[in-house]
Amino acid sequence: MDGVIRPKVLKGFRDSLPDREIPRRKLIRALEDHFISYGFVPIDTPALEYAEILLSKGGGETDKQTYRFTDRGGRDVSLRFDLTIPFARYVALHQHDIAMPFKRYHIAKVWRGENTQRGRYREFVQCDFDIVGTNAITADLEIMLMMAGGLKKIGAGKNQIRFSHRGVFNNLLNRLGLENQSIQVLRIVDKMSKLGAKEIRSQLTGLVGGKNADLLLDFITVEKDNPSTLTKMTQLAQGFDGRRGSPSGPREKPPATEQLGIILDAVDELTMQENLVLDPSITRGLDYYTGIVFETYLENLPSLGSVCSGGRYDNLTGLFTRNTVSGVGASIGLDRLMTGLEELDSLNLTASNTDILILSLDEGLLVHYQRYARDMRENGLSAEVYPEPKKIGAQFKYAESRDIPLALIVGPEEKAAGIVNLKDLRTRDNYNGISFEKARVKARDLISKKHNTAIRPY
Amino acid sequence: MDGVIRPKVLKGFRDSLPDREIPRRKLIRALEDHFISYGFVPIDTPALEYAEILLSKGGGETDKQTYRFTDRGGRDVSLRFDLTIPFARYVALHQHDIAMPFKRYHIAKVWRGENTQRGRYREFVQCDFDIVGTNAITADLEIMLMMAGGLKKIGAGKNQIRFSHRGVFNNLLNRLGLENQSIQVLRIVDKMSKLGAKEIRSQLTGLVGGKNADLLLDFITVEKDNPSTLTKMTQLAQGFDGRRGSPSGPREKPPATEQLGIILDAVDELTMQENLVLDPSITRGLDYYTGIVFETYLENLPSLGSVCSGGRYDNLTGLFTRNTVSGVGASIGLDRLMTGLEELDSLNLTASNTDILILSLDEGLLVHYQRYARDMRENGLSAEVYPEPKKIGAQFKYAESRDIPLALIVGPEEKAAGIVNLKDLRTRDNYNGISFEKARVKARDLISKKHNTAIRPY
Repeated sequence: MDGVIRPKVLKGFRDSLPDREIPRRKLIRALEDHFISYGFVPIDTPALEYAEILLSKGGGETDKQTYRFTDRGGRDVSLRFDLTIPFARYVALHQHDIAMPFKRYHIAKVWRGENTQRGRYREFVQCDFDIVGTNAITADLEIMLMMAGGLKKIGAGKNQIRFSHRGVFNNLLNRLGLENQSIQVLRIVDKMSKLGAKEIRSQLTGLVGGKNADLLLDFITVEKDNPSTLTKMTQLAQGFDGRRGSPSGPREKPPATEQLGIILDAVDELTMQENLVLDPSITRGLDYYTGIVFETYLENLPSLGSVCSGGRYDNLTGLFTRNTVSGVGASIGLDRLMTGLEELDSLNLTASNTDILILSLDEGLLVHYQRYARDMRENGLSAEVYPEPKKIGAQFKYAESRDIPLALIVGPEEKAAGIVNLKDLRTRDNYNGISFEKARVKARDLISKKHNTAIRPY
Repeated sequence: MDGVIRPKVLKGFRDSLPDREIPRRKLIRALEDHFISYGFVPIDTPALEYAEILLSKGGGETDKQTYRFTDRGGRDVSLRFDLTIPFARYVALHQHDIAMPFKRYHIAKVWRGENTQRGRYREFVQCDFDIVGTNAITADLEIMLMMAGGLKKIGAGKNQIRFSHRGVFNNLLNRLGLENQSIQVLRIVDKMSKLGAKEIRSQLTGLVGGKNADLLLDFITVEKDNPSTLTKMTQLAQGFDGRRGSPSGPREKPPATEQLGIILDAVDELTMQENLVLDPSITRGLDYYTGIVFETYLENLPSLGSVCSGGRYDNLTGLFTRNTVSGVGASIGLDRLMTGLEELDSLNLTASNTDILILSLDEGLLVHYQRYARDMRENGLSAEVYPEPKKIGAQFKYAESRDIPLALIVGPEEKAAGIVNLKDLRTRDNYNGISFEKARVKARDLISKKHNTAIRPY
């Protein structure tokens, strides 16, 4: 094709077509509403930052995946690859303007030049939420409660948050004299749900010997209920209560097992034992975390893996300021969550949000149709007018392709007689020769049935 | 500071703090709701595309401002600098999957390395909406009606859309034998509202002579009402009716003046003469436009300039496919609109969306406080618990810094007596010693007053 540039998108990138963008927008709005009901506020940060800042942690894998370049002003810049480092930079930069505790959410795109062969995309949406500036264990509880409720609200059904405490694990490792191998141990334990006990025991034995492996395996096994698990954990990690000064936190934290005890009491009192399960095998690989850690699984789709993970950290801003800020937070992989919701049939894929199409039968009635539409909109319906009097078959086809449930059909004769015809395109039911007011009421009634969905409509 | 990286953002970029991000999110959601009520659907495209595609138009200024670099795969890539070219590429790429007419909106960030001295930012949010795949003049009407209603809905107050038709202007230029100077003439005329008639006449005289200048000045002058303006325009541009075959459009378009006539009839029938004003001086500089063109001004803030501009084009996708797709669309500069709303006091700047803060007075009641919060949320209020029993003064200060209007105050004594204290922090009114249920009802009542705002709350 000469003179024409072939339209294409970059490898690993994709357009979001309406049938996917509509549920994505709905999902984001439902999550936002939920976060706001808990007092969280939105922030945004630039997509582009100094590479020095974004890559300050110096993670090898991340560095290689980051979109980094020199801008026209000679600055070494990068596209953000997560929302955590920008948040740390944000808190450090605005620390004197932020009222603590600070509860924020951030839903935005990030970019990673990942290997696309693993089905990964190079541009995707992250959703992070954190409470920083407090050591209170209630903040940890609140993050988990918020997540449990949020997943229900967006139609993901029952979910289970599996949580533990890195401090208790560290105590056990100290007791066994394995503190120097903690990273390797944590890496193996982290694979428990994937590999199973037998394989984990074998790997641990190779690393720390059979006796320690048995003890570690005992430690990470979930007991019949939360209190039994905590009792077992406390006994095995005995003698090391995890108490230590928190550098700048407003209060000293209670010992790790005591913190878990407070969480368990709350879980009992709120009768959420089925939602929040103490699971000592949860460690979250990253050494970033220092307290409560958790992962979240959908009961109807455990194979999806954790859809929301997080934990408590002692020093969010260490790279950017000497004032340490502690906090607790979590991250939702929005695209993976969408995949899950789709598998659960909770995504409501639809080609449009339009409730009613006003067919265009006569050139002379075009403005009249606009009035119908205006009236429908003023009554809470989403209405569109087909823009020109094409063949009626083409107009019905258009309605079908856009998943529009209702049609209003008015020609010159109906107009003269002061009546309209309403058609339910899903059921093929007709409501002919009625007044426009009647049709409007009927349309609202028919639509409210349609919108009986998990994710609330716009 | 050794070992610490100074936190900063790139020149021309900025963080969005909650007091600005909250109204921005609300504004975006209000616009989305409005677009959806007209049957528009959302799309998204990648932030990063092949430079060859984004810069295919070869505009000199734009090329220099674009963030362009070579990625790790050796591809020549750019960050998008507008939403128009990505949309053209999108329509060309998905033309066989898109049901026409296609009505889409796209609200997203774009990046331009502009000169920041002019107060411009290098990252900003654009909001584009278009109807493509139809030549029907009703589409043009709908875009303008949607905009007029939308600005009212988001609290921008009365607004005026000033529109004209490029075809009529072209006819006049043809009649005067000035078709080869059309770009220069349009550029001068475009400055009418800024420079005034005298200066425009002088500039036009220099270009096309005094007689033509007088005629052009007569042409672009607004008459006492829309029909008078159209009559004048028709007379001056006589003999050239603007009829021409439209390459692939579904129907041949009526002549330009006839199209304006249809719009004016609709404006009359919908009694929107004050909102839609025919103004022949509106030309929109870009040669991209071929039909209706318009600009939108806020009646209470005309100095802001046009907050939403657009028009009809014949060939959106010409760079990417031989199948021409015509359409009509417009673009809102969201950040400038926000500036305007702020000046009009319609922005509702607020540091949070939280309705009620549950104070934390006693460690033993922390879970109890969570239940209050849960109950408040289930009743539609946004509630947060202060995470730890700090001094009450600090908690009130926190509420104040976050613009939280209400506080629930419950200590061990109140808990034992089954009562609570509710405080309106705005009026200092106290509702003490009442049941929690009563407090909840009172809180809802007090909040519904607060939320009596132009932009609907989350």
